[in-house]
Amino acid sequence: MLNKALEFARQNQERFLNELKDVLTIPSISTDPDHKPDIQRAAEWMAEHLRAIGMDNVQIMPTAGHPVVYGEWLRAGKAAPTVMIYGHYDVQPADPLELWSTPPFEPSVRGENLYARGSADMKGQVLASLKAVESVMRSGGMRVNLKWLIEGEEEIGSEHLDDFIKNHKELLAADFCLNTDAGILSADKPSITTGLRGLAYFELRVYGPSKDLHSGLFGGIVHNPAQALAELIAGMHDKNGKITLPGFYDKVRKINKKEHQDFARLPVNNKLFLQQTGAPALWGEPKFLPAERIGARPTLEINGLLSGFTGPGSKTVLPAWAMAKISCRLVPDQTPEDTIKQMKKYLKEHAPKDIKWELTYLHGAGAALVSSDSPGVQAMSRAMHSVWGQEPYFLREGGSIGVVVQLQKHLGVDSVLTGFALPDCDAHSPNEKLHLPTWYKGIDALIHFFYNLK
Amino acid sequence: MLNKALEFARQNQERFLNELKDVLTIPSISTDPDHKPDIQRAAEWMAEHLRAIGMDNVQIMPTAGHPVVYGEWLRAGKAAPTVMIYGHYDVQPADPLELWSTPPFEPSVRGENLYARGSADMKGQVLASLKAVESVMRSGGMRVNLKWLIEGEEEIGSEHLDDFIKNHKELLAADFCLNTDAGILSADKPSITTGLRGLAYFELRVYGPSKDLHSGLFGGIVHNPAQALAELIAGMHDKNGKITLPGFYDKVRKINKKEHQDFARLPVNNKLFLQQTGAPALWGEPKFLPAERIGARPTLEINGLLSGFTGPGSKTVLPAWAMAKISCRLVPDQTPEDTIKQMKKYLKEHAPKDIKWELTYLHGAGAALVSSDSPGVQAMSRAMHSVWGQEPYFLREGGSIGVVVQLQKHLGVDSVLTGFALPDCDAHSPNEKLHLPTWYKGIDALIHFFYNLK
Repeated sequence: MLNKALEFARQNQERFLNELKDVLTIPSISTDPDHKPDIQRAAEWMAEHLRAIGMDNVQIMPTAGHPVVYGEWLRAGKAAPTVMIYGHYDVQPADPLELWSTPPFEPSVRGENLYARGSADMKGQVLASLKAVESVMRSGGMRVNLKWLIEGEEEIGSEHLDDFIKNHKELLAADFCLNTDAGILSADKPSITTGLRGLAYFELRVYGPSKDLHSGLFGGIVHNPAQALAELIAGMHDKNGKITLPGFYDKVRKINKKEHQDFARLPVNNKLFLQQTGAPALWGEPKFLPAERIGARPTLEINGLLSGFTGPGSKTVLPAWAMAKISCRLVPDQTPEDTIKQMKKYLKEHAPKDIKWELTYLHGAGAALVSSDSPGVQAMSRAMHSVWGQEPYFLREGGSIGVVVQLQKHLGVDSVLTGFALPDCDAHSPNEKLHLPTWYKGIDALIHFFYNLK
Repeated sequence: MLNKALEFARQNQERFLNELKDVLTIPSISTDPDHKPDIQRAAEWMAEHLRAIGMDNVQIMPTAGHPVVYGEWLRAGKAAPTVMIYGHYDVQPADPLELWSTPPFEPSVRGENLYARGSADMKGQVLASLKAVESVMRSGGMRVNLKWLIEGEEEIGSEHLDDFIKNHKELLAADFCLNTDAGILSADKPSITTGLRGLAYFELRVYGPSKDLHSGLFGGIVHNPAQALAELIAGMHDKNGKITLPGFYDKVRKINKKEHQDFARLPVNNKLFLQQTGAPALWGEPKFLPAERIGARPTLEINGLLSGFTGPGSKTVLPAWAMAKISCRLVPDQTPEDTIKQMKKYLKEHAPKDIKWELTYLHGAGAALVSSDSPGVQAMSRAMHSVWGQEPYFLREGGSIGVVVQLQKHLGVDSVLTGFALPDCDAHSPNEKLHLPTWYKGIDALIHFFYNLK
């Protein structure tokens, strides 16, 4: 029966790819209100697809934000385990558009890759789950119960999912959750993620004069808000790349010897990170390995800057305001609530009196650590061994997945975190791509995974 | 004859205003290539107008950039002085458009003000000169020779005017130049400017990773270019607002006792500057008066910032690059050439190895000091006394007017610097406005000025 399912998947590769291309044409950008109709279309696409592969009780369920798509298959019986399958149908914005080789919502295969916004993050991953379940179902092999939770706000912090999970505890009860939003180490190195960083995302605005001024007539007597913002930002790290927000490291869990050894054993090195980033040199806290700085140390990043005149040429303006998007990646046991307080305290202590500032907290989530000897992780580990011929690596990585924290908090449900997007997939960048050979292997691995669970 | 000219101006106030409104409808934005046809239209408008008031040899003369409008009236004879009348027909960009109460190129009178881009800076000033000359000519009273030099690149640094003046030394020979681009202290305080700051305008780009990265997957191992740019900018001033570029103050001319007394006597104070700027508090080198910081001390301003994601909402991007527009106001005896070297030296000394940077010098000009006992300044001083009933103030102000330096360098021609734009005219901001009672007084003062010269 396993072989029948694998054979079914192999026979249907072209159709699977075409279905993926179809959903990738929908620009379901969750952060942009203009794309609300596309969000709805993407939710409907997912619901129809769940019905098509035989799921029951499929619903598009409202939240205070974008809707959740739910579906279930509970016919394995009460004695069998129940697996929640998580996904998100929303995507990141696609700008800057001019850097895309082909339009972000016109999927295009070049070489071994499929290029489109959402191909890797994570419509491709959702389709891998859908197609693996379809293959197992069509071969009569599904022996576990399934519950699908496909949200539309992952890229904006899963803000309303928290309430949704809290309000549907019974409906969503499960033994564990399969979450394929965490990626894989490389095409030939399967991996399961056992740790995720949290997030606290801010917008900081600095206001100076009441309107843009002529820099000649007034330059020298008012504190330029763009300069004041730069001074505030520059002070947020010390010379060693350590973050200076008061109390920021108080609750940061130390890396123990065993964890340090795990990090040191990972098949990554400075050269690989230089290749992946294209940066002239690596940077960060010198006392920690690069993999530790990504996986187990918090960060503070400037995600955007805007002030004054930014067009071609020159304008001698002294701008009235300046804005920065700033986000912190958090590790256990930091919380977004603490980070908000620390950021405010820093600003109160360091902002000069000759400007005004305004801090908006946009969204966030705590960090998560997942047990590596749970039945779900073990089933995935054996599945990957079957497909890749080697044990997967166990990672703690830098991204933030709000739902992992929320499921643990409200339902006591741990997540099996993996995925089939490569580190160079450009998830939030132009020319996002999905490596198709790894995607097909991923579908096979998921088929094995469901058989391993029975 | 003087009274006849003043009477003519009074009778024609409405027509003068309508002519000004007409030229203000042309969006002659010199920095924006899309507006090249409007630049041409504005030049043609000026040429037609010069012909209409009786000027000879009117020409639109090409430069390597936007054209110069020339016209002359040399019928006063060789014994009479020759006055060059300077103006510019180009304007600043109008963005952010949403902050304008009425569209920038649809002139609108509200209360005592005319609102439009270019109303104050400086189409209104050019029209004041044109209308004063017309009034004197129509009254048979012009006793001096005139040469008009109306350029189209003042707002982008008069880059090609330098060559133009160098190549037309004979055509442009004059005893002095009337330049009304310098403004007035307030509606009831006439002023003549005897010092101007220079300018050096830069664009600084900082490059980090080869493309935008996911801040979760890579945050912590590369130096964020927006952060690196902020660090470089923050380091350009010390805690007292002093600029740290190496050697920046080496050639700054000290303020002597007499000059300090002149500055201290000016009818300005902290309260007025706070009102004019709307800033929460004043800022700058504590050892100098605010008026000195504007008039006799150099500055370094951030005119613009851009990096990463700047739209509404959030995007967890680690940006590939960050950009700042940075300009220095220069005082005697600084030069833009020195400033370029100092900026480069600063960047070489302070930019870390984990980013790359690129500095582009966009344009600039030296500072200028003008003698206050020349016949031109004296004629203007008496004219202002006649109209306002008081001696004008003599100022050293913060703006930069490239042509003043160029005329002195190539032709040995000093400028009489004044104007009828108020400090709160929002010259480079939304809702730029011209105070019409001051404008009409200005036309009268210019009529007096021409009679005083005979």
